[in-house]
Amino acid sequence: MSEINLGVTCDMHVHLRDGAMCQLITPTVRQGGISVAYIMPNLQPPITTIERVVDYKKQLQALAPQTTFLMSFYLSKDLTPELIHEAASIGAIDGVKCYPAGVTTNSSSGVDPNDFSAFYPIFNAMEQEGLVLNLHGEKPSTGENGNDIHVLNAEESFLPALKKLHQDFPNLKIILEHCTTAAAIETIEMINKGITDPAKIKVAATITAHHLYLTIDDWAGNPINFCKPVAKLPKDKRALVSAAISGKPYFFFGSDSAPHPLSNKARHINVCAGVYSQSLAIPYLAQVFEEQDSIDKLKGFVSDFGLQFYGVKKEDLKSLDEAIIFKRKQVVPNSISDGEGIIVAPFKAGDKLDWSVKWASK
Amino acid sequence: MSEINLGVTCDMHVHLRDGAMCQLITPTVRQGGISVAYIMPNLQPPITTIERVVDYKKQLQALAPQTTFLMSFYLSKDLTPELIHEAASIGAIDGVKCYPAGVTTNSSSGVDPNDFSAFYPIFNAMEQEGLVLNLHGEKPSTGENGNDIHVLNAEESFLPALKKLHQDFPNLKIILEHCTTAAAIETIEMINKGITDPAKIKVAATITAHHLYLTIDDWAGNPINFCKPVAKLPKDKRALVSAAISGKPYFFFGSDSAPHPLSNKARHINVCAGVYSQSLAIPYLAQVFEEQDSIDKLKGFVSDFGLQFYGVKKEDLKSLDEAIIFKRKQVVPNSISDGEGIIVAPFKAGDKLDWSVKWASK
Repeated sequence: MSEINLGVTCDMHVHLRDGAMCQLITPTVRQGGISVAYIMPNLQPPITTIERVVDYKKQLQALAPQTTFLMSFYLSKDLTPELIHEAASIGAIDGVKCYPAGVTTNSSSGVDPNDFSAFYPIFNAMEQEGLVLNLHGEKPSTGENGNDIHVLNAEESFLPALKKLHQDFPNLKIILEHCTTAAAIETIEMINKGITDPAKIKVAATITAHHLYLTIDDWAGNPINFCKPVAKLPKDKRALVSAAISGKPYFFFGSDSAPHPLSNKARHINVCAGVYSQSLAIPYLAQVFEEQDSIDKLKGFVSDFGLQFYGVKKEDLKSLDEAIIFKRKQVVPNSISDGEGIIVAPFKAGDKLDWSVKWASK
Repeated sequence: MSEINLGVTCDMHVHLRDGAMCQLITPTVRQGGISVAYIMPNLQPPITTIERVVDYKKQLQALAPQTTFLMSFYLSKDLTPELIHEAASIGAIDGVKCYPAGVTTNSSSGVDPNDFSAFYPIFNAMEQEGLVLNLHGEKPSTGENGNDIHVLNAEESFLPALKKLHQDFPNLKIILEHCTTAAAIETIEMINKGITDPAKIKVAATITAHHLYLTIDDWAGNPINFCKPVAKLPKDKRALVSAAISGKPYFFFGSDSAPHPLSNKARHINVCAGVYSQSLAIPYLAQVFEEQDSIDKLKGFVSDFGLQFYGVKKEDLKSLDEAIIFKRKQVVPNSISDGEGIIVAPFKAGDKLDWSVKWASK
């Protein structure tokens, strides 16, 4: 059986929550074949202080000593340029996550994406420090009032704001997180046109595992697949798959694995948005890449490109182990549980996957 | 407080199920302000014999003696032209419902809408008998394979088949049920262009109450609002509202009220499609019509146009009572229940409605 070495893998968009959920989920980063994880700050309340981000990282590290955690602040009015400089100087954070107010889980403290100008001093400080700005790139829905922003066009409607930010901060590293539309892929391509040196990429996009599988029909009537941004149309999915297997260094992996207790997914109203894919992250991806005859492109997508963009240094890694994929079928469990009440249903529960992942010690 | 007399009201698309659900739901037709109800045949197995449709009507009548039930067959290979003629001659049915295979609840016995030709002898018999063909107008989803039919374009993709049917059977009475798109409204308008005599209308459309409220954002994450066809975009909703309040006799009410046990809605996978709106059908509508300053158009939509199209005769009515709406606020209950395990969550559970409905004896 042939094995493929993916090197030091990274997932640049990970939700590990806190409390009992955090204890259950944090060890599954490594189980899913991921070595380096960039951690989202949307706890309740959001992470906006050095003390909290340091403490959170310590908790995570205790739960998963071999996983390297990159940490982030939650963009809000609580941040100051001074705080950004201080946090960067001690290596407390690698970036800042921007949530438009109200679009997804714990985003009520988010910002108005129609006007980022209040945060320009923050972005300026980030640009100086080489920190990454992670954008949840959706305009908040307006329903039938205003300009008809809804879950299908929310991402495309955000793209002008992305372009303006890049224009105003040409040296700020920006990621359009979990992109879901052909329009987003085109915008990232356009911004990077002519760039051949990966070190010169300033605007990149992460792509999740689940958006390589899902379209609107898969979440209509299946809350397990409901996430924000929602999976879009077949043509959008094809654009995402093409980008993921393209070998272009400005498209890399960010699972947006977002666990919720099953009881918050199996509801008739107010289903929590999020797909949990952490425990099988690499096998989900390998399946898609192989179907596209592009398994050779997987290493770039899950290792090289993300590590390069974030500037992760070898000396900062908690482990040099390399992820090895090999052909061994497995069935996605219907749920994972801590045995004490926390139950999470993984993406593609009950389905078969062709690939497994293991670690090679270094 | 002013009262408005809506006359003998009708809901031309009603699911009453069977068993315990039927016992709970059937009396709510009248509670919701509806006198005449056209009943869907998608039981398990589907209703395709005179014996079953007569028996089902008898059950319903016993549960709701004052409600007038119009009955239908389920279009399938079990039907023959002889059966259609016989059923019509004894008044057992008023129409035949066509479900494309696999698009909604209990539609696995449905037909392939890409080719209706196998059913042309049935349609011919129906045309002769003046029976109504009720179309669930959606192409089955194909996902990313084939021609990219998905829940958003499934109805628009069906419209050419509707036009061809009308062309091939110009005297067959056809209803495009529960239409959800601006494209469908435009098609119905186009087909009826120049028709001024309501008796000459051959192709009409029903519109539900819930589609006058919902857009995609309302069912994303809220299975209570998930139905087939799914609610579409804000522009589509506006087109539906415009059609409903237009006073055009080829747009009338069909609630598609489709109750499911709450346990089948509050799931993380395989949520049943259907919105239950029967118990407050008229108050839901009155709210929308008043918001549009069109309460004077409600009577046509919920009474005159549907009765005219179906040719309902006064002597066939079980009651001549007239529905009266009046301004009295009420809160939609969170659920209705038979106290023995059947629980159904109504549309807009917990929300306030401005109107109530009562009956004036005749």
